[in-house]
Formats: sequence, structure tokens, C-alpha cells
Amino acid sequence: MNQDSTARIVAGLTTWIAAAPPGARVPSTRTISAQYGASPVTVQKAMRRLGALGLVESRPGVGTFVRAVRSIRPADHGWQASALGAPPNRTSALSSTQRAVSPDAIGLHSGYPAVELLPERLIRQALARAARTDAAVTRAPAAGLPDLQAWFAAELAAAAPAGVTSATARDTLVIAGSQSGLSSIFRAVVGPGRPLLIESPTYWGAMLAAEQAGVVLVPVASGSQGPDPDDVERAFAESGARAFYAQPNFANPTGGQWPQATSQAVLETVRRHGAFLIEDDWAHDLGIDADSQPIAPFDDDGHVIYLRSLTKSVSPALRVAALVARGPARERILGDRAAESMYVSGLLQAAALDVVTQPGWRTHLRAVREQLRARRDLLLAAVEEHAPQAFIGGRPRGGLNLWARLPEGTDVARVVRDCESRGVIVAPGTEWFPAEPSGPFVRLNYASADPSRFTEAAGILGGVLGES
Amino acid sequence: MNQDSTARIVAGLTTWIAAAPPGARVPSTRTISAQYGASPVTVQKAMRRLGALGLVESRPGVGTFVRAVRSIRPADHGWQASALGAPPNRTSALSSTQRAVSPDAIGLHSGYPAVELLPERLIRQALARAARTDAAVTRAPAAGLPDLQAWFAAELAAAAPAGVTSATARDTLVIAGSQSGLSSIFRAVVGPGRPLLIESPTYWGAMLAAEQAGVVLVPVASGSQGPDPDDVERAFAESGARAFYAQPNFANPTGGQWPQATSQAVLETVRRHGAFLIEDDWAHDLGIDADSQPIAPFDDDGHVIYLRSLTKSVSPALRVAALVARGPARERILGDRAAESMYVSGLLQAAALDVVTQPGWRTHLRAVREQLRARRDLLLAAVEEHAPQAFIGGRPRGGLNLWARLPEGTDVARVVRDCESRGVIVAPGTEWFPAEPSGPFVRLNYASADPSRFTEAAGILGGVLGES
Repeated sequence: MNQDSTARIVAGLTTWIAAAPPGARVPSTRTISAQYGASPVTVQKAMRRLGALGLVESRPGVGTFVRAVRSIRPADHGWQASALGAPPNRTSALSSTQRAVSPDAIGLHSGYPAVELLPERLIRQALARAARTDAAVTRAPAAGLPDLQAWFAAELAAAAPAGVTSATARDTLVIAGSQSGLSSIFRAVVGPGRPLLIESPTYWGAMLAAEQAGVVLVPVASGSQGPDPDDVERAFAESGARAFYAQPNFANPTGGQWPQATSQAVLETVRRHGAFLIEDDWAHDLGIDADSQPIAPFDDDGHVIYLRSLTKSVSPALRVAALVARGPARERILGDRAAESMYVSGLLQAAALDVVTQPGWRTHLRAVREQLRARRDLLLAAVEEHAPQAFIGGRPRGGLNLWARLPEGTDVARVVRDCESRGVIVAPGTEWFPAEPSGPFVRLNYASADPSRFTEAAGILGGVLGES
Repeated sequence: MNQDSTARIVAGLTTWIAAAPPGARVPSTRTISAQYGASPVTVQKAMRRLGALGLVESRPGVGTFVRAVRSIRPADHGWQASALGAPPNRTSALSSTQRAVSPDAIGLHSGYPAVELLPERLIRQALARAARTDAAVTRAPAAGLPDLQAWFAAELAAAAPAGVTSATARDTLVIAGSQSGLSSIFRAVVGPGRPLLIESPTYWGAMLAAEQAGVVLVPVASGSQGPDPDDVERAFAESGARAFYAQPNFANPTGGQWPQATSQAVLETVRRHGAFLIEDDWAHDLGIDADSQPIAPFDDDGHVIYLRSLTKSVSPALRVAALVARGPARERILGDRAAESMYVSGLLQAAALDVVTQPGWRTHLRAVREQLRARRDLLLAAVEEHAPQAFIGGRPRGGLNLWARLPEGTDVARVVRDCESRGVIVAPGTEWFPAEPSGPFVRLNYASADPSRFTEAAGILGGVLGES
């Protein structure tokens, strides 16, 4: 990773400029060149970048100067209160899983895997190749690059049993990450004021998107074995909902995987109620003891709307996912996507397709499986030994997280705060519940932090829990 | 642009497979290798890609075969009608500006500039560089890369008069193209059922986003000199609207640029009504006889929400734009973006920042200005000579389009159809009107088609109009 010398000089001078008075003369190219051991060309490049950032201005023949800052008076935004009116829903604060924390802290809160778990070489090669193609300078079709649509469709078709008509490439929309897919589905297929069944606990991002769409959440209890199909049946009957959002494989946060019988029963229930199952296969590439077994390939008649992202298995910078939907639902969702974003960068699509069609991709997935297994088992053992008060119901068969129940009555916010003050960041379970939490939980990500620090982290968690 | 041999073989075999019966044996690597003059390694790479696309399956030691297609029965999506209910608004068909057409046709309908007008070398170099940095494998912050935020903010600050406090980097959100910004602003700042003033005619994409957000449009007549400020005043007073969406510079479709006095008067009106001006500076880098002169730098108190995209001036594949908003409006919009998409690919942001901070960027913009001028003048002269029935009110001072009024009573749909059957694609003006069109118009893009065919195109348009 090239922390190149231009960036180094820009960073250094930015700090210098922040402390310098406006109009101060910036040291000469020769001085900076000597100080950073960089060539004059590199220094001049850094100066141009500072100029473009509006931090310095150069007067030809005179020198370069810190740009005069305009006088700042406090702006009055009070008038906006009446223009904006009351907010449509509770302010959506950033989830704790998205926080950037000190590099010294042990971050068990993240929703993403560490860079070591990404196919870094494949990504860089694919991007370099895509940069040389038409994809770098042209607009992609609204529904996605045809070859990438076909790849996603073929993956589903390969899992279809005999006699079931698979979704086609045409049914597959390429979107910029599954979050935008959730937003579009909730807006276009459910709609404001209408009910949506949702597992409890479940992914906070889905609840955020549902809230933005004005959808009414109907929680259905779920856990390591998924929901009770009778519960799902009752919830459909009582609420009149026509859709159920779920993560049948390696659910976030519980890590649960639905048994085959549950999947079949829920699909039957959904059919009987003329409803949609919105299947979020977020950890499709992140199985450990089992593969993800999506329900979508068993559906003939467009009851399952399927989401599957490459963000977590390829790279968070190649923000590409597939949304598979059939019939009028597909048309409505495509219309919503067009209004929302028109199309997804073809460059990212071309690079993602390149990565997943390389022979190295399968090899990479096998290696990641072993790394996830080792990380999961290590953190689990560390928690069992050093923080026995945190109860982990079952060893998740895939995904990135452990879901730990704390002793009844534990103040989760205090635990999170006290852990953080000792350098361990954990995510409060509260964020994954659509209503009141069913108990005190924390989510511990085993895929992000340095595994050599898991024991230390578990020790700190154990210490904090011991003080309750 | 590398149409590489792997891609050539994949394309050839895909055609062959489409005609072959399921189970047919694919020719041997040696045969294909000879046929395409490619190495066996290249052929095997192509076969792997076909396998990944689900088109062939290989049986080790036996050969490679066309994959058996599953039996297709017509699926029944009828049940979805009652699950989905009535559509929330008229179906948003794809705009005619987004159509892909035969490569032989002369496309005057597009909304994008030709590849020759893009800084192709800078784009490819920037992407290759970004592919080697952390940006390729990490998640970007929700509001954008700080350096890119700072660049956008500095551009606005440079245009601010003395005594006006500029928006800062913190007020600048990086978004994936201005379309998603429009959607978020209309949802978060205006809201469903509430009125929004909008120029007529105006950008169809803004109307599409407004419709998706359930906003009620209040048209204000506009043209090459922008709207009449008294009209804007009356529309605010009568409708009770708290927001006005406008393109004060090189408006799409008219090409109009508001005189300074209009900009000042409208900003005053907006302030007096405690309202927002949503300023879409879509053609910021596409000035010809004038520079874009945004209104945002004259605003102190967060009345102007400013949008400025790099999609059209850098590359449609580097889908990056800035949304500048201050005060509570910024918080609401940021919340909506988080729910909608979490973050924008840091790779695209890093590459875009690289392009616009290269010395070659300014040189490129100057060259584009001359190319746009030459193209505009050429198409204008051709239309005046060969299609005099199409009246073009004024030479647009920037942007990509001519806006031509056809003789009263012309059937625009017929003109579009007849032009297309003779190989010229024009966009019907109807799409740019929020209500009934004020007359028969077509929009002619001078930045996309081959200029050597402008005379031919104008001749065909003139011929079609002569037959009315």
C-alpha cells in the first residue's frame, strides 16, 4: 500500500498550515525537498494538491502563501426549524458498528472483515485491468452489466432443484450494495404505513431502511434456529403483512441458520399468504461449518426477492450487489432504483466480475473459511475462559460475529462504555432489536480485530462484567 | 481499449452455445486455440469464464459440455397484483435520453458527452493509482473522503464574496451522483405531500426523484433568462412551498443562465420565505461563453442546498458528486443517505480527487470548452440552414444541448419516430415539462454524436418537419 511521498508531504504541510497565520510564506521547494527527502517534482505536486484544496495560493515569481481565511461569523440556521417541520422518524444516528476508533483499541464492533480476509491481489489486478477498458469511461446500463447479471443468476440457478424454473439474468439487477436494495424494496414493494414482518433481533441497517421508507415493523422472534414457522404464520395472519424480511443463513447478529424444514415451512406460509420473502443472503461467501443454502432457488413464482452482496467478501470499495426479483415486483424496484441512482459505476461492476471469475477466487474463499473458523474458535474459547459471564448460545456456522447474552439485569451501555475506556470496543445488542431488547446482549466481531489480542479483549470484557 | 482475446473467445462461444443443443460437446482447447489464434492458456481462461457464467460445465477427463437448460414453464406472477397494490405514482419509464441505440444512428438524444470530451488519460491513470492504495480495500467514511470534501468546499469558497462565510468541508457530503442527492433532498428536506417549486421546463431526473419522494410539484415558467423573480415570489406565496429546485447555470434543457439580478432577487425571495433554494449546478465544468456562477457562495445561512457532479465532466464511471448543505438540513440529508446507501466507494472518490487535482485537469477543461463551442456552433448552423422550421431561441452559453421549438401544432412523437426511422435520434421535449408542455419542443445534444454527421442529421430533421 503506497503511502506515497506526495501524500506524506501534504499531510505534514496541512498540519503546519493549520498552525500558521494566514498569508505566511510556505517554505521553499528546496527546504521541503530536503526535509522530506523527496524530489522537487514531488514537492511541487504536493503544493499543487494543497492549492487545489484551497489551503495555499501561489503568486508566480513571489512564492507560495497560506491562504487568508475569511472572517467567520456564526451562521444562523434557526429559520430551518419551521421550513423542515418535525422529523419523519427518530433521528437515525450512525450505528456503533460504523464508528472509527483509535488504532490502538481492539475493535470487536465492526461489521466488516479485516483487509487480510479480502482477495487483495485479485482486487488490485481487477481494478488495474478495468481501468484500461471501456468500463472506465462509459455509462453502465440501468440494470447492470449483462455479464455480471448472468454470473449472479447462474450462481442461483446452480442451486435450483430439478423442475424449478430459476431466475434469469434479466431478473437480476446490479445495485450499489445491499443497503440501497433494501431501501428500494421497502419503498417499492412494501410502502409507507404498511406492515413488514422482520426477525428480532435482526440487522440494524434493514430497520434503518424500513424506517426511512415509513414501513411498520412487525417483529417475529428468531435465534440460532431461525423463527418458529407457526409464529411466522400467526404474524402474517394477524398483521395482514404481505412481506417478511429475513436472513436465513448466518443471520446478523445471531449467526443462526434456518434448518431446511423451517425454510420450506416459511416459503409455504409466504406462498399461502400471497406474500414476499425478502431474503438477505448477506454472508453468502462467509460460511464456515456449512455453506449458505438460500431459499430463493426453491421459488418458482417470484415470492422470494433475493439480495446478495459482494461488499464483504470482495471489497468494501467494490460496492456491488445483486437484487433478484421477478414479475411486477421487479419492475417496481427497477423504477425506484432508476429514480434513486440511475445506474451503478460500470468500472466497479467490471472489476467485481473479474475478481469472482478468476480461478484464484475459489481458492481465496477456501482460505477465508479456514481463517474465519480459526478466528471464531479463538474468540469463543477466549470468552468462555476469561468472560464466562457472557453466554454464547451456539457456535455460529458462518458469518462474522458472536452474539453474547450478558447476565440478566446487566446495564449494556455501561459495559460498552467501560470496555471502551479500557481499549476494547464492543457493539451494544440494543441496535439489533426492532422493539425492546429481549435481554442484555453484545455483538462481538471475530473477523476484524487482530486475533492475537482476542485473549486480552476477553479478559477486559470479563473484568468489566465481574464489576457489575 | 483492450478488447482482449479472452473476451473475443467468450463472445464467439456464447453465440455458438446459444445455437447448440444442451449437452453438446464444446470444441477442444486445441481447436479453439487454432480458430482464434490464441494460446491454450487464453482459451482455458475463456472456458472458465463461460463456466462461471453457467453456460458450460466441464467433466474432468471427459470434456466440456453445453450446460443442460432446465425446463421452463411460464411462471405465475399474477398473485403479486394484490400484494403490491396500486402503484404509488405513474410508472417511471426510462427516459428517452437513456436509450441505447444502433451504432449507425446519429444520437442527438443522449444526456452525456462523448468519450472524446472526457479526460481519458487522467481517468485511467487515476484509477490505476487508486487501485494500488488503501482506497481499494477499505470502507470510506459516510460523509466522504475528507480531502475530496475539502476540494469541493474550496471550490465554492473561492467564489464567495468578501464577508460571506463559506460552507466548509464538513458541510459537504460526497454522494454517488447527483440523482441520489436529489432523492435524498426531496425526501429529507421537502417530504411527501409537500409542495416544491420547480422550473418549467426542467431536468426530467429531478421530476422523477420528486415523484418518488411523493413531493407535489409547483411549476414556475423559465427560459433562457431563468424565471421571472416576481413569478417565483407569487408561487412561494400561493403554494406555501419552502423549497425551489432550479438550475441557474446552463439549465437542462434550455441552456439558460440566470442574469446576476435574477439570482440575487430569487435568493432574497427564498430568504424572505424562510425557504431553501436547491441549486443543481449540473454543468459547472461545461461553460462555453461564460463560467458557471453558482448562487451558493452568496448564501450565509444555509438557504442554498448545492449539488455539483463530476459524472459528466470526469467520467460516468466515476460517479461522484457533492451535496453542500448547512444546519439541520445537512443532518437530515446525511441521515437519509446513511439509510439509503451507507457510503460511496472510496476508490471512486480517490480516483476523482486525483483527476481534478492534476495540472492536466485545467488544461483539459479549457480544451473541452473549445470542443463544446465548435460542436454547438456547428449543430446550430446546420439546424438553421437545413431545418429552419426548428427555432432555437438563443445560443446556449454552456451545457450540452440545443432546445428547439417546432412549429405550433407539430406532433412531437411523430417527428421523433420519423427521425428515428431515418437514423436520427432526438429527445421529445415533453419529458422536461412538469405539466402540459408549453409547446412542441425537441432537445438536441451537440456533445455526444459525431460532429461530422451534424449536417446530415439536420437535413433529416428538416425533411421530417417539411412533411408535417
